[in-house]
Amino acid sequence: MRIYDIINKKKRGGVLTNEEIRFVIDGFTAGSIPDYQVSALLMAIYFQGMNAEETTAITMAMVDSGERVDLSAISGTTVDKHSTGGVGDKTTLIVIPIVAALGLPVAKMSGRGLGHTGGTVDKLESIPGFRTALSDKAFLDITINHGLCVAGQSANLAPADKKLYALRDVTATVDSIPLIAASIMSKKIAAGAECILLDVKTGSGAFMKTLEGAQALAKAMVDIGKGCGRKTAALITDMSAPLGRSIGNSLELKEVIQVLSEPAETVAQDLYSVCIALATNIAVLAECGTYEECEAKVKQTITSGDALKKLADMVEAQGGDRSYIEDPKNFPLAPHIVEITAPQGGYISDMDTEGVGIAGMILGAGRETSEDEIDYSAGVILHATTGDRVEKGQIIATFHTSKSAAIEPATSKFIAALTFAETPPPPRTMIYGKVGF
Amino acid sequence: MRIYDIINKKKRGGVLTNEEIRFVIDGFTAGSIPDYQVSALLMAIYFQGMNAEETTAITMAMVDSGERVDLSAISGTTVDKHSTGGVGDKTTLIVIPIVAALGLPVAKMSGRGLGHTGGTVDKLESIPGFRTALSDKAFLDITINHGLCVAGQSANLAPADKKLYALRDVTATVDSIPLIAASIMSKKIAAGAECILLDVKTGSGAFMKTLEGAQALAKAMVDIGKGCGRKTAALITDMSAPLGRSIGNSLELKEVIQVLSEPAETVAQDLYSVCIALATNIAVLAECGTYEECEAKVKQTITSGDALKKLADMVEAQGGDRSYIEDPKNFPLAPHIVEITAPQGGYISDMDTEGVGIAGMILGAGRETSEDEIDYSAGVILHATTGDRVEKGQIIATFHTSKSAAIEPATSKFIAALTFAETPPPPRTMIYGKVGF
Repeated sequence: MRIYDIINKKKRGGVLTNEEIRFVIDGFTAGSIPDYQVSALLMAIYFQGMNAEETTAITMAMVDSGERVDLSAISGTTVDKHSTGGVGDKTTLIVIPIVAALGLPVAKMSGRGLGHTGGTVDKLESIPGFRTALSDKAFLDITINHGLCVAGQSANLAPADKKLYALRDVTATVDSIPLIAASIMSKKIAAGAECILLDVKTGSGAFMKTLEGAQALAKAMVDIGKGCGRKTAALITDMSAPLGRSIGNSLELKEVIQVLSEPAETVAQDLYSVCIALATNIAVLAECGTYEECEAKVKQTITSGDALKKLADMVEAQGGDRSYIEDPKNFPLAPHIVEITAPQGGYISDMDTEGVGIAGMILGAGRETSEDEIDYSAGVILHATTGDRVEKGQIIATFHTSKSAAIEPATSKFIAALTFAETPPPPRTMIYGKVGF
Repeated sequence: MRIYDIINKKKRGGVLTNEEIRFVIDGFTAGSIPDYQVSALLMAIYFQGMNAEETTAITMAMVDSGERVDLSAISGTTVDKHSTGGVGDKTTLIVIPIVAALGLPVAKMSGRGLGHTGGTVDKLESIPGFRTALSDKAFLDITINHGLCVAGQSANLAPADKKLYALRDVTATVDSIPLIAASIMSKKIAAGAECILLDVKTGSGAFMKTLEGAQALAKAMVDIGKGCGRKTAALITDMSAPLGRSIGNSLELKEVIQVLSEPAETVAQDLYSVCIALATNIAVLAECGTYEECEAKVKQTITSGDALKKLADMVEAQGGDRSYIEDPKNFPLAPHIVEITAPQGGYISDMDTEGVGIAGMILGAGRETSEDEIDYSAGVILHATTGDRVEKGQIIATFHTSKSAAIEPATSKFIAALTFAETPPPPRTMIYGKVGF
């Protein structure tokens, strides 16, 4: 078998065999196939695509390059969720305590944020003492005892994916749907859960800007999950505006607590509806009943306080101070809190959500490079969002930051992200569809 | 300027600027841009193509990576020809003495053969003493004194092309028309001639198997030549059967001498007609008169013996024994000469010309790898070709070789390359068209 022939076959639109794909991934990981041949193959894949069998094969080859998390000691149907990422996306921290409260254990490996989207691990680390670097035993024990645990991602999970992603990142081959799908799914499959629900975001704040792209990615990932023998489904959800009203680590965690503790009608409806849909669909995937039954149970975990208690238990088990969950006023506020006013009156008809995320990043809520430090208290609180009518001079957002010099550039970026109109935009659709049910 | 952005731009179908192309070629040659980024860009170019301005820019960037041959000391209009290569293609050795005899100097850099096609330098080296490794001064002096000289290609001509070709060769990105065109033309432009005639072969023995491919390559090369300020044109000629009756170095040189010394009606008409067309079009390009005038002058150089004398003068000036040109019986014959008979009767309706070339290579006439030694006397003489009617058992070819073990595999390869039919095929078209006039 020669890598040249494999590149040439894909270039001409051929379908690679499982053996050919394993040869590439194993050789690349071992260093016997040079980067320059793999990058040519990646570009050929960008243009010619890969079918479901090829995409599953590359995923499994990447899974087999490292270790798998063994969740067999956990009783009950293990579940996992993955979001393709978005601005203000704190759904994981709302959904996993809910499903844990339903008796579905979640042993979750999660990443840090980069760029304009935040990471679940970063948000949790805004609680003093919270640890995400856990031994395998601690990870399993906490899940067994409390039904949920969030650990930082192990370096041994799909190392081939890490190496391949690094090459894609410098060769402009990131935006290939089969490669994105395989990259995400290799880590999900290695992480071991039986049921996987994918939240594929679409819109101006999402990696997939178009609905067609999001649908294709969702289908590719569901095909892989099923091809690997996991119950897998996806929701396609809206990211045309930030999700909820807060952007930034401790600010988002406070909104999580709000959704899990306050009456449904008082919290951000976009965030609430997506979280209920995600949790309900996980329960359906895990065969907890009909959609209506599952939805009722999901809402019950909030009104009973069970979900919030699960979150507090997990925080405590992972070394964090549970009083922050029980009384979010414990979170320190940023030294500078600045009100941002509408530069004109009218309806907010559209938002460049990525721009809003970048404003938050400038304030200190996110990393531009992986070496950057995060300011946990920094971020943005939105007082108006897409669809709202505002008057000129009305307060539309509050910036939280420790860097006074960041306020002016963040304000420019934020204001530039808003579009105003005389008439209201059509109502936002939060759930665009489901794949895999 | 970032290589990532350039890859991404081409991937999305953008047109690269001259500055971007220079940045890539200069950085790649200097080693500051790694192979893995360049190979991703090459694959993107394979899929998205390059327009005439981009192709000219990459050619000029490759020319500027090395030296240029300075032909300014030569008086008269300097001319050059290039063939994309074929089986039995000895046109250069017929055409350049003709045009030299017309007063058009040819200072030609030529390569060695690889695979199923032969190289001009190899053919000339079948003459004892002939040297192609010449100093710059000797190369110019011989051209000034005799009107023609063939030197081996200098390592300093377009070194970026050499490095880029090596990367293309291992990343399945050779067969991109703009990249092929730029590679060929970078060496032709650096070699300095004012007029360049390209002979683009099409058919089963050519690199470009289809007429459409040959036309596209011809157009791309002519656009580059003109873009670089050279008078450039191309003929598209047939390579659906070996050109002439001989394949192999000294055997081909003997056929060259035959064409330059014997009556036109006694030599292979396919070879004769292509050579007359090439020489005439070079003369037209160099503004020696109308097509009819030029054609008459070209034929006159043969009947007068002037062209043959030019060839002999050049051979002598480059250290070779001119008696081989004056009396080709001096060329030693191979130890084994074997007659090959038709396995069946009928018309030879088609020939896998590449297969015939490979039979010659097996006999010792060509190199499989660049380290292989050539047997100058080895090769094939065809007694029948496409269009001829043969009886079963009739002698259709003679094999010349010093390796008796090669005879059986070469025979199998040769016979397998022939297709027989009850009815004659349509007559061969030798010249499919012209580009650039």
